[in-house]
Amino acid sequence: MVACDPVARLRAKLRISNPLYVNLLSEFYGTALLLVLGLAIVMQFILTSEKMNTWININVGWGFAITFCVYCCSKTSGGHFNPAISLVMVTFGRLSVKHFLLYSLVQTLGAFVGAAIAYGVYRDQFLHYYAEAGIEGDWIVHGLFGTAGCFCSFSKDYVSNYTNFIDQFIGTGLLALFVAVIIDKRNKIPDVAHPLLFGLVLIMIGCAYGMNLGYPINPARDLGPRLFAYFLYGGEVFTQGGYYFWVPIIAPLPGALFGAWSYHFFVGAHIPDTIEDREINYIKEAEMMPLKKNEA
Amino acid sequence: MVACDPVARLRAKLRISNPLYVNLLSEFYGTALLLVLGLAIVMQFILTSEKMNTWININVGWGFAITFCVYCCSKTSGGHFNPAISLVMVTFGRLSVKHFLLYSLVQTLGAFVGAAIAYGVYRDQFLHYYAEAGIEGDWIVHGLFGTAGCFCSFSKDYVSNYTNFIDQFIGTGLLALFVAVIIDKRNKIPDVAHPLLFGLVLIMIGCAYGMNLGYPINPARDLGPRLFAYFLYGGEVFTQGGYYFWVPIIAPLPGALFGAWSYHFFVGAHIPDTIEDREINYIKEAEMMPLKKNEA
Amino acid sequence: MVACDPVARLRAKLRISNPLYVNLLSEFYGTALLLVLGLAIVMQFILTSEKMNTWININVGWGFAITFCVYCCSKTSGGHFNPAISLVMVTFGRLSVKHFLLYSLVQTLGAFVGAAIAYGVYRDQFLHYYAEAGIEGDWIVHGLFGTAGCFCSFSKDYVSNYTNFIDQFIGTGLLALFVAVIIDKRNKIPDVAHPLLFGLVLIMIGCAYGMNLGYPINPARDLGPRLFAYFLYGGEVFTQGGYYFWVPIIAPLPGALFGAWSYHFFVGAHIPDTIEDREINYIKEAEMMPLKKNEA
Amino acid sequence: MVACDPVARLRAKLRISNPLYVNLLSEFYGTALLLVLGLAIVMQFILTSEKMNTWININVGWGFAITFCVYCCSKTSGGHFNPAISLVMVTFGRLSVKHFLLYSLVQTLGAFVGAAIAYGVYRDQFLHYYAEAGIEGDWIVHGLFGTAGCFCSFSKDYVSNYTNFIDQFIGTGLLALFVAVIIDKRNKIPDVAHPLLFGLVLIMIGCAYGMNLGYPINPARDLGPRLFAYFLYGGEVFTQGGYYFWVPIIAPLPGALFGAWSYHFFVGAHIPDTIEDREINYIKEAEMMPLKKNEA
Repeated sequence: MVACDPVARLRAKLRISNPLYVNLLSEFYGTALLLVLGLAIVMQFILTSEKMNTWININVGWGFAITFCVYCCSKTSGGHFNPAISLVMVTFGRLSVKHFLLYSLVQTLGAFVGAAIAYGVYRDQFLHYYAEAGIEGDWIVHGLFGTAGCFCSFSKDYVSNYTNFIDQFIGTGLLALFVAVIIDKRNKIPDVAHPLLFGLVLIMIGCAYGMNLGYPINPARDLGPRLFAYFLYGGEVFTQGGYYFWVPIIAPLPGALFGAWSYHFFVGAHIPDTIEDREINYIKEAEMMPLKKNEA
Repeated sequence: MVACDPVARLRAKLRISNPLYVNLLSEFYGTALLLVLGLAIVMQFILTSEKMNTWININVGWGFAITFCVYCCSKTSGGHFNPAISLVMVTFGRLSVKHFLLYSLVQTLGAFVGAAIAYGVYRDQFLHYYAEAGIEGDWIVHGLFGTAGCFCSFSKDYVSNYTNFIDQFIGTGLLALFVAVIIDKRNKIPDVAHPLLFGLVLIMIGCAYGMNLGYPINPARDLGPRLFAYFLYGGEVFTQGGYYFWVPIIAPLPGALFGAWSYHFFVGAHIPDTIEDREINYIKEAEMMPLKKNEA
Repeated sequence: MVACDPVARLRAKLRISNPLYVNLLSEFYGTALLLVLGLAIVMQFILTSEKMNTWININVGWGFAITFCVYCCSKTSGGHFNPAISLVMVTFGRLSVKHFLLYSLVQTLGAFVGAAIAYGVYRDQFLHYYAEAGIEGDWIVHGLFGTAGCFCSFSKDYVSNYTNFIDQFIGTGLLALFVAVIIDKRNKIPDVAHPLLFGLVLIMIGCAYGMNLGYPINPARDLGPRLFAYFLYGGEVFTQGGYYFWVPIIAPLPGALFGAWSYHFFVGAHIPDTIEDREINYIKEAEMMPLKKNEA
Repeated sequence: MVACDPVARLRAKLRISNPLYVNLLSEFYGTALLLVLGLAIVMQFILTSEKMNTWININVGWGFAITFCVYCCSKTSGGHFNPAISLVMVTFGRLSVKHFLLYSLVQTLGAFVGAAIAYGVYRDQFLHYYAEAGIEGDWIVHGLFGTAGCFCSFSKDYVSNYTNFIDQFIGTGLLALFVAVIIDKRNKIPDVAHPLLFGLVLIMIGCAYGMNLGYPINPARDLGPRLFAYFLYGGEVFTQGGYYFWVPIIAPLPGALFGAWSYHFFVGAHIPDTIEDREINYIKEAEMMPLKKNEA
């Protein structure tokens, strides 16, 4: 049986049994894949001067990129691709702090690699863009004829970093909130539908909170490609907007915690027990009672 | 078990057992969330002069905002977020009149709070919009460079309030009609699909009945943010269009009743019994028969 | 139980038991509903000079209008709303010729009523459209400032009626083909997903075969509103394009038959039996064998 | 029973039992159908100067065209319609090399026939397009007023064939990667959802990798219509861009293999066994052990 099924044979020979290694490999691969898709979507938007992709393509394309990259990793790491989501999982008791740090590292590495691949496919388009604009020499980071936005977010000069922080706090908060809704077993949404719904959530957020910064809402997605852009555009990718670069790294973390826990605080914690749940509680209470009696 | 699951621990400590309080909290939270998303979608449309969001983004964004806010509250209040829908539930025998009034109140409050949050994130964009337009002093409510449409609906000068009433009657009627279709158990649509389908219904209505007023079709969604807009724009938000403001408060209520009941009148009441249903009927009749015999 | 459930009470009092009457009522109501939505979508496209709705809104809006109108009638008539689809059902042995004729009649009537309602909501917009254009007197049917396209299809002067016939033949053929695919039990697509998939099929067809005529592909959808438009625009709605009006009435019928049966001819008839099917066949053969023996 | 079910009667009379013939017929029919839809979508984009269809229509239309054509053939050949996908199936041990060659042939033939049908419906539009542009004589292949892009892809003069190769390698790689994810039984995605998800994958790829060449990513889809276009435009459809035509024939093949196997290499091979799987492994090992003992 194994002999004639090449996929099973690969598995038999190659399979890594250590779950941490498997999950880190998945987070690296999945985040790279997400950026291979996601940055190409943004490039197709910016480099055609918004003629080919319009904003709805950005929303739909990124949404389904999340959907299918999560499907890809759903049975290994679960497909976070985002330190802010991984941090939520730490506070949900599903991930250790050590693993969170390792996840964040490989997510950022994956995002860097993904940026390199997308750039490789569209390098000729960057050159053509500046040739058409009659611009020679250094590429422009931000503003008129700026193209570094293909890689990471930049601050608008009329939006303060205080507002940028709020924007990333709220944007990532909404993402984490609806992730918490979707994965809450009490909401009885089948596992197989989760990746599709995550994608639709991202489509929705892009229609609402893209105006200030273009919804990075993910420290790895923003920092990894920014590091790659450094080699193309120089240090301005970090200094732009009063060292804005740290905002989409930091703000998503408390934002995600606030969003996810606000759901459980206001709604999730109060969902009525179903008959099934009551039985589980009954068993739990039965198990805990002797201990309490012994205490007495 | 409880000790290492922080979500379960929160639930154990915090859980409110009174269903009315739980449901009011859900309706407040869910409606606030809906407006945090929905108004940001409209702001991204208006404040970029329809360059970033186009009309399809309004439809898709609002549709999925409904979808995910309903998922959020599906196991508590069910997620009405709309007094017109709550009123339909009263006539379906699923909600008392007293609860309907309380629901309407917290929905409107939630909408007010949601408006404040969305405005907080995009305040810099409002300022930039008027700076770009070279307008100083008071912000404009409606028409050229009007931005109060970010919060609530306004009447066009070539559309009468009679037509506006019909528009809101029909628009909310269609929403309630399809809600009645989707939740009718005889149509056998699984519960978990309901929020997604509600969202698609809203996308559809936005493609059809947005031309007159932008489909508010929800008294709380319109009044809550209008109250917030009062603090930014002054009394004109109420006096505009011959005191138009009461139309999207009043017209949705009879409209929703008409829509929902027209479905049952023309179609729902005539769905043939399946074998299963017949058995249920048989049991019902068996239970009722002695009573009838005693009457005789 | 019945006493406190108003929906059940309505059913108990009102329910029509004759399936033909139920189905005719459903086809009338559902087709009216479809046109209340569908024509409003087209009006929002034409009367805003394609600024509010763009072509993707037409596709998505009509697609979901089909989806939800079919959900509405899925347990009664099944939701054809289209004589061409009803005719396919005749050849599939699921509808009698007499019922097909009655269905076609009430579908056309429903479409007429739906047109009247959509027009009622948007009458002010028609008036405003011509006021803006500085046009007084009779409304224009087709071409520059033509608005009768809000109701039904018209022929372009550079497209022959021969091509128009092919266009409606192919367009309706594709619709009926994929309806046949979706309802073929051998493809094992759950009933509850059918209306959603029908809607996505229509979105797809609108992206492909809308350029010549705007994909009416439904005799009732085109004729019903054309009759209504006659009262607004006069006889030109029938004489336009060399009496083009009969094309979208006639061409869909053979087109639908060709499409639906081509699926069964090329693919459906050759789907391998599953184990289950074989058992069914075995029983059938066993039942038929004695008859054959008796013949011998 | 058979007598009154015309579909069953057709099946009884016509059914082909040889699975190879059934599958070849399906691949031919399905690919023709895909191109009847897909090319019409592109024509509606190009011939209306991108006024009717915009890029999102291309993505959505093609996506659902894949979805429904795969539904059509899901129970016969499975619906590849693409030699690159068929080649992946060879390496997955699901198709022989001989069948792969036959599949590729009928897929290309089907694409040719599909192109002819779409052209038939829109021939008047081609004539009108050049009449409007004031162009007489030969139609233009590529660039300003070029329309051969309605049939197949052409190279931009500022993108090298080296980049074109990478583009088709990556684009088809992503398609095959997500096909491998979706059909991997360990990801537990129900069969009935596969065609819908394939379509959404294509929508996503079109938002990301359409800028260079318009994502043909399918040798049959590109070559079949190119052969048809030869009769309309002459040899330039092959010589354009330094004999670019072979790129979308060759590059998708290694690209698809790379994409599909990279998923199994990085993620699929490492998915943890579920309890069920372990039992299967146990049985497998039990079956293989005696053999090994006998060897010793």
